[in-house]
Amino acid sequence: MSLLTQYLKVRKHTEKICEPLQIEDYVVQPVVDVSPPKWHLGHSTWFFETFVLKPNFTAYQEFDPNYNYVFNSYYETVGARVIRTDRGNLSRPTVADVYKYRAHVDEAMESFLCREPSAEVEELLVLGLNHEQQHQELLRYDIKYILGHNPLFPAYAEEHIEHDLKVDLQNWLKIEAGIYEIGYDGNEFCFDNELGKHKVYLQGFEIATALVSNAEYLEFINDSGYRDFKHWHAEAWDWVNSNKITAPLYWHFVNEEWLRYDLAGGLKPLKLDDAVSHISFYEAAAFASWKGSRLPTEFEWEIAAKQLNWGKLWEWTESAYLPYPGFSKAAGAIGEYNGKFMISQKVLRGASVATSPNHDRITYRNFFHPSLRWHYNGLRLVK
Amino acid sequence: MSLLTQYLKVRKHTEKICEPLQIEDYVVQPVVDVSPPKWHLGHSTWFFETFVLKPNFTAYQEFDPNYNYVFNSYYETVGARVIRTDRGNLSRPTVADVYKYRAHVDEAMESFLCREPSAEVEELLVLGLNHEQQHQELLRYDIKYILGHNPLFPAYAEEHIEHDLKVDLQNWLKIEAGIYEIGYDGNEFCFDNELGKHKVYLQGFEIATALVSNAEYLEFINDSGYRDFKHWHAEAWDWVNSNKITAPLYWHFVNEEWLRYDLAGGLKPLKLDDAVSHISFYEAAAFASWKGSRLPTEFEWEIAAKQLNWGKLWEWTESAYLPYPGFSKAAGAIGEYNGKFMISQKVLRGASVATSPNHDRITYRNFFHPSLRWHYNGLRLVK
Amino acid sequence: MSLLTQYLKVRKHTEKICEPLQIEDYVVQPVVDVSPPKWHLGHSTWFFETFVLKPNFTAYQEFDPNYNYVFNSYYETVGARVIRTDRGNLSRPTVADVYKYRAHVDEAMESFLCREPSAEVEELLVLGLNHEQQHQELLRYDIKYILGHNPLFPAYAEEHIEHDLKVDLQNWLKIEAGIYEIGYDGNEFCFDNELGKHKVYLQGFEIATALVSNAEYLEFINDSGYRDFKHWHAEAWDWVNSNKITAPLYWHFVNEEWLRYDLAGGLKPLKLDDAVSHISFYEAAAFASWKGSRLPTEFEWEIAAKQLNWGKLWEWTESAYLPYPGFSKAAGAIGEYNGKFMISQKVLRGASVATSPNHDRITYRNFFHPSLRWHYNGLRLVK
Amino acid sequence: MSLLTQYLKVRKHTEKICEPLQIEDYVVQPVVDVSPPKWHLGHSTWFFETFVLKPNFTAYQEFDPNYNYVFNSYYETVGARVIRTDRGNLSRPTVADVYKYRAHVDEAMESFLCREPSAEVEELLVLGLNHEQQHQELLRYDIKYILGHNPLFPAYAEEHIEHDLKVDLQNWLKIEAGIYEIGYDGNEFCFDNELGKHKVYLQGFEIATALVSNAEYLEFINDSGYRDFKHWHAEAWDWVNSNKITAPLYWHFVNEEWLRYDLAGGLKPLKLDDAVSHISFYEAAAFASWKGSRLPTEFEWEIAAKQLNWGKLWEWTESAYLPYPGFSKAAGAIGEYNGKFMISQKVLRGASVATSPNHDRITYRNFFHPSLRWHYNGLRLVK
Repeated sequence: MSLLTQYLKVRKHTEKICEPLQIEDYVVQPVVDVSPPKWHLGHSTWFFETFVLKPNFTAYQEFDPNYNYVFNSYYETVGARVIRTDRGNLSRPTVADVYKYRAHVDEAMESFLCREPSAEVEELLVLGLNHEQQHQELLRYDIKYILGHNPLFPAYAEEHIEHDLKVDLQNWLKIEAGIYEIGYDGNEFCFDNELGKHKVYLQGFEIATALVSNAEYLEFINDSGYRDFKHWHAEAWDWVNSNKITAPLYWHFVNEEWLRYDLAGGLKPLKLDDAVSHISFYEAAAFASWKGSRLPTEFEWEIAAKQLNWGKLWEWTESAYLPYPGFSKAAGAIGEYNGKFMISQKVLRGASVATSPNHDRITYRNFFHPSLRWHYNGLRLVK
Repeated sequence: MSLLTQYLKVRKHTEKICEPLQIEDYVVQPVVDVSPPKWHLGHSTWFFETFVLKPNFTAYQEFDPNYNYVFNSYYETVGARVIRTDRGNLSRPTVADVYKYRAHVDEAMESFLCREPSAEVEELLVLGLNHEQQHQELLRYDIKYILGHNPLFPAYAEEHIEHDLKVDLQNWLKIEAGIYEIGYDGNEFCFDNELGKHKVYLQGFEIATALVSNAEYLEFINDSGYRDFKHWHAEAWDWVNSNKITAPLYWHFVNEEWLRYDLAGGLKPLKLDDAVSHISFYEAAAFASWKGSRLPTEFEWEIAAKQLNWGKLWEWTESAYLPYPGFSKAAGAIGEYNGKFMISQKVLRGASVATSPNHDRITYRNFFHPSLRWHYNGLRLVK
Repeated sequence: MSLLTQYLKVRKHTEKICEPLQIEDYVVQPVVDVSPPKWHLGHSTWFFETFVLKPNFTAYQEFDPNYNYVFNSYYETVGARVIRTDRGNLSRPTVADVYKYRAHVDEAMESFLCREPSAEVEELLVLGLNHEQQHQELLRYDIKYILGHNPLFPAYAEEHIEHDLKVDLQNWLKIEAGIYEIGYDGNEFCFDNELGKHKVYLQGFEIATALVSNAEYLEFINDSGYRDFKHWHAEAWDWVNSNKITAPLYWHFVNEEWLRYDLAGGLKPLKLDDAVSHISFYEAAAFASWKGSRLPTEFEWEIAAKQLNWGKLWEWTESAYLPYPGFSKAAGAIGEYNGKFMISQKVLRGASVATSPNHDRITYRNFFHPSLRWHYNGLRLVK
Repeated sequence: MSLLTQYLKVRKHTEKICEPLQIEDYVVQPVVDVSPPKWHLGHSTWFFETFVLKPNFTAYQEFDPNYNYVFNSYYETVGARVIRTDRGNLSRPTVADVYKYRAHVDEAMESFLCREPSAEVEELLVLGLNHEQQHQELLRYDIKYILGHNPLFPAYAEEHIEHDLKVDLQNWLKIEAGIYEIGYDGNEFCFDNELGKHKVYLQGFEIATALVSNAEYLEFINDSGYRDFKHWHAEAWDWVNSNKITAPLYWHFVNEEWLRYDLAGGLKPLKLDDAVSHISFYEAAAFASWKGSRLPTEFEWEIAAKQLNWGKLWEWTESAYLPYPGFSKAAGAIGEYNGKFMISQKVLRGASVATSPNHDRITYRNFFHPSLRWHYNGLRLVK
């Protein structure tokens, strides 16, 4: 598939995700971590405009110089940006304007890609496509948050990605102690944080073949799991109490029944056989402690995953997000992509039903702050 | 004019104000005091539905029972409400739905008003119309805030209410000491906070015939008015410093020139002959102190106003918002209208270019917290 | 009594108040409004050093130039100051050092006062003494707060100022409508905020001869007064809920009995015949509303007080703290004394058992933010 | 040395550290992480009373039942505790009372230890002594913070622990790639977080024989290190900006000269040959990034340390504080000792001049949040 074809396919997929939205849904930012959908549409476009077109395509006419200020996310190198909590305060540019912006950049990219860009620019472009795929996944998280926190609990679409989260049969897969190799060394795209294939020594361990189910998690709740400090990290216990957390995100206890919001039609009875999802690392670790078990490290996961069925939900690991041996930041704005987040985050491995096609890899290192839970995640135990 | 005609006229005026908006403009809430325009549209409708139709019109079919939760503002009597900072997080109901809600209630009100409602219900209805007119004015404040704080500084309309804020010729009007009568005692509508005509004793004073102009205010700025604590109340000085205030709202110092955002076309050079507007009470009082002068009390204003040209901008007074002798709250939800705000607020008198037709009165008592300034206000000096 | 004798008497009284304290009690600042006792001792001394000795007594040797930074309170004119919340973080200067500082300044004042200071300096000195008397009263509030919020509830002294807070017999005193004179015009000391004797017009009213008692206040509590929003101002209701207020300060419901901390010996059963005290304006106003009554204005109070028994507790009034006609700030640092607080405060009238001897006046205008309640206050109703 | 002798020696050392303090210094808590010295004195005593005496020595008379509430730190198992920010608000118990409490418990411990306690109790006692040694080190941090943040910059003692922080000669020590053993397996005391000797695979690396010096750190400052975002983690950059950080703690730029507060006599010129200390992990990592280098992992450190001169300052490592393979929390309150902090913390290795005698170990895992810097720490580079 040519780069141009790939480009157009990825770009189209983003818009496809937004198709069921009302204009109003594109605008709001109910919490700081959620961005308005129109911001994602603009920001992923701004990436190509700023890093590909402006420096490399002299014929390019900038769409609107103010957009740099509006759609930059966290690249300090590229000037002032709308502070994150302000994104939901901006009614302009309108959704229609943002789609015009996308069309303008896409058209320019088509012209540009006909001219056979250099290898270096191609690399940047591939990064831009992977970047846009990451925002596609974030779009799904954010849309779920926006609709799932609205008092009218509107549906997003009839059939949806969450229709099959059923857990597999549970067994224990045994991995022997020894030296293993970690990290990416193929010839396709990967992020810089996966590079540096290197040896690690693993102690022997056994890992569950199934994710933890809603039924199992409900046992934890019913056993007062959220009210017994001894399962929780100290900062997790503060989080539970100051936020009055009593269940995973999107769970509601209504008329003596557990309901769960999903995108295919609002509040519905909790499916007990589905994998538990939308929990924080704090909750995952507390559940594991209650179970007398633990979470895998990301290295254990990477080695075991070859024999596991993974990809429905991102899986919390015990590992902190740290650089691999020999990691170094790239020069310039692109260097801000990963390295500066390598602190106070936990690694998640795998992929989820919200992950875009061809965007999963066994070496992929996703990461979130341990308190966050609006992404599609779950947990798998190790003993 | 029949009540129904009045009703339809007021209701139509609200929608007229929103006509120039894009759908996105209806949704956002950039600060806690600003409400999304679609919330105003729904809330003023909810008032008629809740207080007029539901208790008095048995044929009425509620539009959507969830709307009570979404559109209640601060009436504790009528159940849970969306907390104020959440209003801008709600993408649903959509703007189209809100207009449907308005049409539904308007239709019901037409049927209802044909049946000659009781005097009591008529009174409630008139209150509802005055309530909606207040929200019309708030709509104008909020629209200006939403567009005027957008980095693209979009215009609202070509010709606009702010086109004539030119100050009058300045003279001093002298009022003799003595006993005067304060408060409303006519036969038309007034709010409960204006009632209780009563005597006050005023010392003699002189009051300016003109509002303070931008030119005069600029002198204060250029004389380091914002950097000299001695003009400011203690809490005002904290406000100036923690918010880094250096000029009225909507002023921007760009390329050595003062610009001002107005609704008729974005950033434009400051008009020196216009009355200064969008200042907090803190700034009004600091300016007066710098000038060796003071603000009028609301009683001085009410007596002098008979001989003044007023109505372009609400005028800050020195008076705290307190009950008149004999004031008492009405029973029920309507009793929450005014009394519970009679603390920590300053009275403003007059009216503004944003005030709806037939909604001004010389006894009208408007009030805002001394730190607020997104409403159309100005100041007039007394010595 | 000579000025020197007065000076020494006032200064000694301050130290007398601190006599029962342990060194540790002098140091802490449990909330922002409470200052450490050693800070009061130093600050009242700093006042004489800064405003009397340094500008007027050339022979004076400054005790320690760093003390200006430590003991300035809020006089912006006199340089940087320790921010208010930091006062309780300072272990040095020690208590012994602060007493040395007092002795040093007192000695210098003795020498200085033998030289017959100018009338102007004398005036400043008298202000300094009244200032120190105000801090004597604050010392009592702060000591009560420090000990009364310690989990060991230590006593301050055996016999104490609170021993007699019994309420008088309740009657209604009737005052006729008419013009009255307000403000101080004697020849003794008064604060600048009392000056400007002036006429006001009062409507007729009746005022209680007794303060509200603990028994009456308990009825309000037992009638769910703290849980019914309709008695409360909007900002008061927020205060009640976010601070979980359910009773006056120093009340504790232990083993089905109401106890109250007082300085003469820790927690003791509530005395039902005592006047209720340590309530915020919010609570005073809510109680009055529940009772179908109201608080007096400060003008009503000043006129009625001639026929009332007052002075045990400061009495909340409905009046906002505003300048009298013709009020203007003095030049220089002394001008910061009162004027800059004339916003967002409520006036209290009278005096309290904590007020220093000869520091009460019928025209005295005390003021506090409506949420505060650690001072000795109570309430009297009007109808 | 008998357990009793050890006990008395450790207990005495704590009081020795406090000898130079004024009573006032024992009371304050200038920031949440610093505890008042009298709290440390009481809390370490409470540990023996609660975990050794009360459950095991029937003859023991509790000193004061309220002290459990006052001196518990974070053991949720043992009931309510004074919330951490409140510690500095408590003037009582007095310092004298706390010393009486110590004497009371020490006397009981002497009687108790004559009776040959069980091995289990002995183990608890040894934990208690190590716990007290940890508080001895914290006492030194907190005393430095209290005195070093006082505007008078008082000295603590003439000769002090900081007199020799001179850096060693700088060379690069090379460690080969391979499998190494990590963790404690001796027969003496160690904390539970060091247990579980296990293999790790290390890549080859070179580590500096010297800590980074003040001179080198000054170069970073002078090269605008604190103003260039690209050296900093994202959350570190927020920390630098919102706290306006421009230098290590205790550094002051006065009259064009860098001074540094140390305990042996207040502000003195910075010693360029001393190791840089009192920096956050954020600063350590930014310095390393500026230098094109990195910090060691805790595993690299533990292997290399056998050939290094360590122990003057705790050394920041890149490692997150996580459980070793096979780690599990002990049952009961003691189980809260370490495990619940294994999140969002960075490991420091080594020891410092503030570490108590016989309290250092090459396997010791100290940990702090990456933003903290009031402990005696420094950094060593790896390439």
